[in-house]
Amino acid sequence: MRAWQIATFASEPRSALRLAEVADPEPGPGELLLRVRAVSLNYRDLLMAQGRYNPRQPLPLVPCSDAVAEVIATGAGVSGFAAGDRVCPLFAPRWLAGEPERERVRTTLGGPLDGTLRERMTIAAESVVRPPAHLDDVEAATLPCTALTAWSALVVHGRVRAGETVLVLGTGGVALNALQIARMHGARVIVTSSSDEKIERARALGAEAGVNYRRETAWGKRVRELVPEGVDHVVELGGAGTLAESLRAVRIGGTIHLIGVLAAGEAPLSIVPVFMQHVRIQGIFVGHKESFEAMNRAFAASGVRPVVDRTVGFDDAPVAFEALAAGPFGKVTIRT
Amino acid sequence: MRAWQIATFASEPRSALRLAEVADPEPGPGELLLRVRAVSLNYRDLLMAQGRYNPRQPLPLVPCSDAVAEVIATGAGVSGFAAGDRVCPLFAPRWLAGEPERERVRTTLGGPLDGTLRERMTIAAESVVRPPAHLDDVEAATLPCTALTAWSALVVHGRVRAGETVLVLGTGGVALNALQIARMHGARVIVTSSSDEKIERARALGAEAGVNYRRETAWGKRVRELVPEGVDHVVELGGAGTLAESLRAVRIGGTIHLIGVLAAGEAPLSIVPVFMQHVRIQGIFVGHKESFEAMNRAFAASGVRPVVDRTVGFDDAPVAFEALAAGPFGKVTIRT
Amino acid sequence: MRAWQIATFASEPRSALRLAEVADPEPGPGELLLRVRAVSLNYRDLLMAQGRYNPRQPLPLVPCSDAVAEVIATGAGVSGFAAGDRVCPLFAPRWLAGEPERERVRTTLGGPLDGTLRERMTIAAESVVRPPAHLDDVEAATLPCTALTAWSALVVHGRVRAGETVLVLGTGGVALNALQIARMHGARVIVTSSSDEKIERARALGAEAGVNYRRETAWGKRVRELVPEGVDHVVELGGAGTLAESLRAVRIGGTIHLIGVLAAGEAPLSIVPVFMQHVRIQGIFVGHKESFEAMNRAFAASGVRPVVDRTVGFDDAPVAFEALAAGPFGKVTIRT
Amino acid sequence: MRAWQIATFASEPRSALRLAEVADPEPGPGELLLRVRAVSLNYRDLLMAQGRYNPRQPLPLVPCSDAVAEVIATGAGVSGFAAGDRVCPLFAPRWLAGEPERERVRTTLGGPLDGTLRERMTIAAESVVRPPAHLDDVEAATLPCTALTAWSALVVHGRVRAGETVLVLGTGGVALNALQIARMHGARVIVTSSSDEKIERARALGAEAGVNYRRETAWGKRVRELVPEGVDHVVELGGAGTLAESLRAVRIGGTIHLIGVLAAGEAPLSIVPVFMQHVRIQGIFVGHKESFEAMNRAFAASGVRPVVDRTVGFDDAPVAFEALAAGPFGKVTIRT
Repeated sequence: MRAWQIATFASEPRSALRLAEVADPEPGPGELLLRVRAVSLNYRDLLMAQGRYNPRQPLPLVPCSDAVAEVIATGAGVSGFAAGDRVCPLFAPRWLAGEPERERVRTTLGGPLDGTLRERMTIAAESVVRPPAHLDDVEAATLPCTALTAWSALVVHGRVRAGETVLVLGTGGVALNALQIARMHGARVIVTSSSDEKIERARALGAEAGVNYRRETAWGKRVRELVPEGVDHVVELGGAGTLAESLRAVRIGGTIHLIGVLAAGEAPLSIVPVFMQHVRIQGIFVGHKESFEAMNRAFAASGVRPVVDRTVGFDDAPVAFEALAAGPFGKVTIRT
Repeated sequence: MRAWQIATFASEPRSALRLAEVADPEPGPGELLLRVRAVSLNYRDLLMAQGRYNPRQPLPLVPCSDAVAEVIATGAGVSGFAAGDRVCPLFAPRWLAGEPERERVRTTLGGPLDGTLRERMTIAAESVVRPPAHLDDVEAATLPCTALTAWSALVVHGRVRAGETVLVLGTGGVALNALQIARMHGARVIVTSSSDEKIERARALGAEAGVNYRRETAWGKRVRELVPEGVDHVVELGGAGTLAESLRAVRIGGTIHLIGVLAAGEAPLSIVPVFMQHVRIQGIFVGHKESFEAMNRAFAASGVRPVVDRTVGFDDAPVAFEALAAGPFGKVTIRT
Repeated sequence: MRAWQIATFASEPRSALRLAEVADPEPGPGELLLRVRAVSLNYRDLLMAQGRYNPRQPLPLVPCSDAVAEVIATGAGVSGFAAGDRVCPLFAPRWLAGEPERERVRTTLGGPLDGTLRERMTIAAESVVRPPAHLDDVEAATLPCTALTAWSALVVHGRVRAGETVLVLGTGGVALNALQIARMHGARVIVTSSSDEKIERARALGAEAGVNYRRETAWGKRVRELVPEGVDHVVELGGAGTLAESLRAVRIGGTIHLIGVLAAGEAPLSIVPVFMQHVRIQGIFVGHKESFEAMNRAFAASGVRPVVDRTVGFDDAPVAFEALAAGPFGKVTIRT
Repeated sequence: MRAWQIATFASEPRSALRLAEVADPEPGPGELLLRVRAVSLNYRDLLMAQGRYNPRQPLPLVPCSDAVAEVIATGAGVSGFAAGDRVCPLFAPRWLAGEPERERVRTTLGGPLDGTLRERMTIAAESVVRPPAHLDDVEAATLPCTALTAWSALVVHGRVRAGETVLVLGTGGVALNALQIARMHGARVIVTSSSDEKIERARALGAEAGVNYRRETAWGKRVRELVPEGVDHVVELGGAGTLAESLRAVRIGGTIHLIGVLAAGEAPLSIVPVFMQHVRIQGIFVGHKESFEAMNRAFAASGVRPVVDRTVGFDDAPVAFEALAAGPFGKVTIRT
């Protein structure tokens, strides 16, 4: 079978990636053999190919963590699955529920474990969930990392509720999922973007307002004009460059959900407003299977569909990586 | 000015109630003088008039707790309010936030304190909230007890989230508010009713399914067919007569929100399923001002309007009590 | 090897139990082979032998869920364990963390699965925890069901904190564990008992007061004299017979942790005080591995030791069942 | 009567402070007239005198927020208090319960409102609590800001429980209260200090270990040797200078309670470990009356006494400010 591999770290994805012929996997006891039907990219996958996520990651590595797949065989002792079942593998296959203990979160797909950008893969039967039926394959492929991160932030940690206000930074994958999940719960949403056109598209998805941070560099202040008491939640995806403005935008006692990768590094954190305003900064990194299943029920109940910016064929995978680098509106996906 | 009073306890509301001419109230320091614009009835008000809620309540008593009113004057030291402001008084005027401590919850309108069914009243300025602007007066009048009870149950205690399933017993005031609040948060709702026509009306409000408990007396089992794993929440309004079926309907680890008055008395509680299924039974009795304000933001953000079954004039107040006894779909209100 | 079995249901334990010679178990992939070193009895085990817990349980069945054991061999693919390691099996071997989903809680030791009252047993390596080092074997054997139930109630669901008051009904296994766990967290404890001598022993363990319910049948009222505002938590172990008094003892907004078996059946539940006093009744049935490990850290940090009333030899197991029926102070254990 | 005032901002306290003769206050409606019996200093009071806390604070200002006092008269409409009652004023007199809304937290004693360093003061009757009876006056005076901050962090936000590990930075007032409150709940405590002698004194109060950060500049790593999985809570009092090491010390999913003033300014926050390790950074600034009362019950139940480093007379107040600047072990207090 064929698999894309990061063969060497390179800033240009097409220099890093190669399409290889590898041995077909066999399902061991308790495992499923899956045919991957669609893959969805995260910014983490791009950083991984560039050697910026984990420079010590052994290569070659099959990249990507997010996918939807079809069960084609089951290993010894597996019950509850049949050929043809549609499933999503877990980003962290051993994190089924509970606290983010080291043993549960250290092994993840797309590094250090081989990921999903291949024709077939095996995984423990307990490490998959069934995506909502109303989603097509590329939509379902976006759930494992992006949507679950937004869900963990707003719902699990943030307990968002109707009437609250959520500020979402940007219009990438996590951002639009956060917008959708906030709207599912009746919250008001404000987005930031460098593009008025993207703001308009976010409004079409339910955002109440948008702030163009290119035009309004002090966008935290602008948010405060829209919501004088400050927002209840900031879905902080900008990292080091945006934290100061996020602190301006959040209400006393509000939460900044710190979700990373896009802009790593060190941010200057003003200590005084954090403690005097009782702000919570909550680091979020994906989530567990139990949350994934709860989220799937929410997507099913609401009929909401994740936003896919673009889909390419398996052979064109490097194009998808390049599209991701260009700043899509929503997700970039690969049909395998 | 004129005020309705419970002059004597009587099973027929029109025997219990009398329209009296009473002295005009004057706002003391820190108080507002209000002109009541609309009043909404709760089943508690009917029980109170019948002497079944608190037989030792001194009479005469102005009944009713729920209203919307207009500020017409302010007492010494009041800031932040002006004549013409529209406000709802708190059901428990001293419960502004925090735990339900005795001092906070023992004084409530409509007994032991005089209630809202009068032309004018005074109340501490801190004991009112501003209702959502999109609601008309009779809609706004329904919020203080009914809607806040449903909010406290599902949102404050139950932390309802998108994709969960909520079973609501009946189609009275709290029931329909619970339906609406669950829907605001993306939850699925099932209602029970003795009337197929009411079930249809509940579906028009967003319920996914209904069970006619007259036809399906083992309705807990029927709910289990609709939701095999059991529902996450039961908004239990039937009291002694329905608890056993509610226990059948709820999932392992689910919550039964026990809200009362309709059917008081003792219910036989099966101990074993409660502990073996990790069920939580949560008693709910209205809520505090902080929740009320949060709920108002939710109604404002969603544009949802409480369901008013019928509105009568101030002079016809006893008719409203009778209409309540007949089992309305939503709220019975009085325009003053 | 030898195993005790429930051969037939009988009200007298020695009629129900038989000592059988059975085949030695072999550890499968991912499993541990354990030599059981001590077993601890729960009231559930007695009910099981009498056919009152689950009359449809297939027989023969090895009874008991609680034990401490020594690893003597490991199956294929097991890492992290070596011969000689001391472990406790989980009461619910598949409930590792998260919500009490059906799949996680339906298989438990001592019924429907064979239990711990045998010389050797196998279990999945993920389904054991390491007990605190300062506990001897019989003490460690008491943790899996009794102590974890008390922990789940007071700590996981109840979030007990210093300065709160906990009312514990009785002086059996769960009761004394609840006393100890409440004291670890700085809470005040009141116990009930039919025996002044047991109350004195509970005071020696840290209880502040005791109420002899034989002398003070209206013991809820007596508790209210000791704690006028009512207690924050009731660890309700009496079931149908005690719920009414527990409701009298608990404060507005307090929690009754409903833990069962001792007195099953139906309790008349007064609906009105539950909702008007905002009471929570929380059904509790053991807990998951993640909580078990947290609890073990608490026992280790505090140096507290569970209370063992009596220990008998493996051959005398029926004597232990009889001792349990007589109402011990703490746990009855069997050294194997 | 006499009152200490900040007459002018000055880096030397004795240049900033003056003892003035001011008019005796009279209790208004709903107010208490108090005779201050003891005052306790916070680092905030020193910064205020130096003009570093709020340079725009109008002067003169009576400094200090923490005190214990005796009721000497009550205003109109006050019930529940009598002359001789011992009370502590609230740091934020209007924050009685609930969320830290702006209106509740913006008025605080010792700036912008006149504080407690005077012979007599008035305050709303609802804005005081009764301290635990076993504490003497200088001990009770330390509760309103310091102890309540530690309580809000560990108990209200952190829900500390037995067996968890708490890292406390330093041995000042909040630090030692955090140590004591963690110990009340059965948690293990590690302290940092620049002094081996102070570490020994902290161990005498129940700390399990100490790290001398002068000798071990990479003290986060040293903590990790003591607690390989990382600590559950860091009580972060060092601010900008210590956050990086705190991040090293905390476990995956753990909480850094960010409490300020000592070292304000900007800290470089490493984004990646915060989100990849699911860390929560929770800003804490004192707390509300409901928590204060809960805390008092905890001190009463445990018999714990806050640590007072030094007590001076009212006339020597500037000496107390100087003693605070020198880095005491626990609190510096003033007997009035």
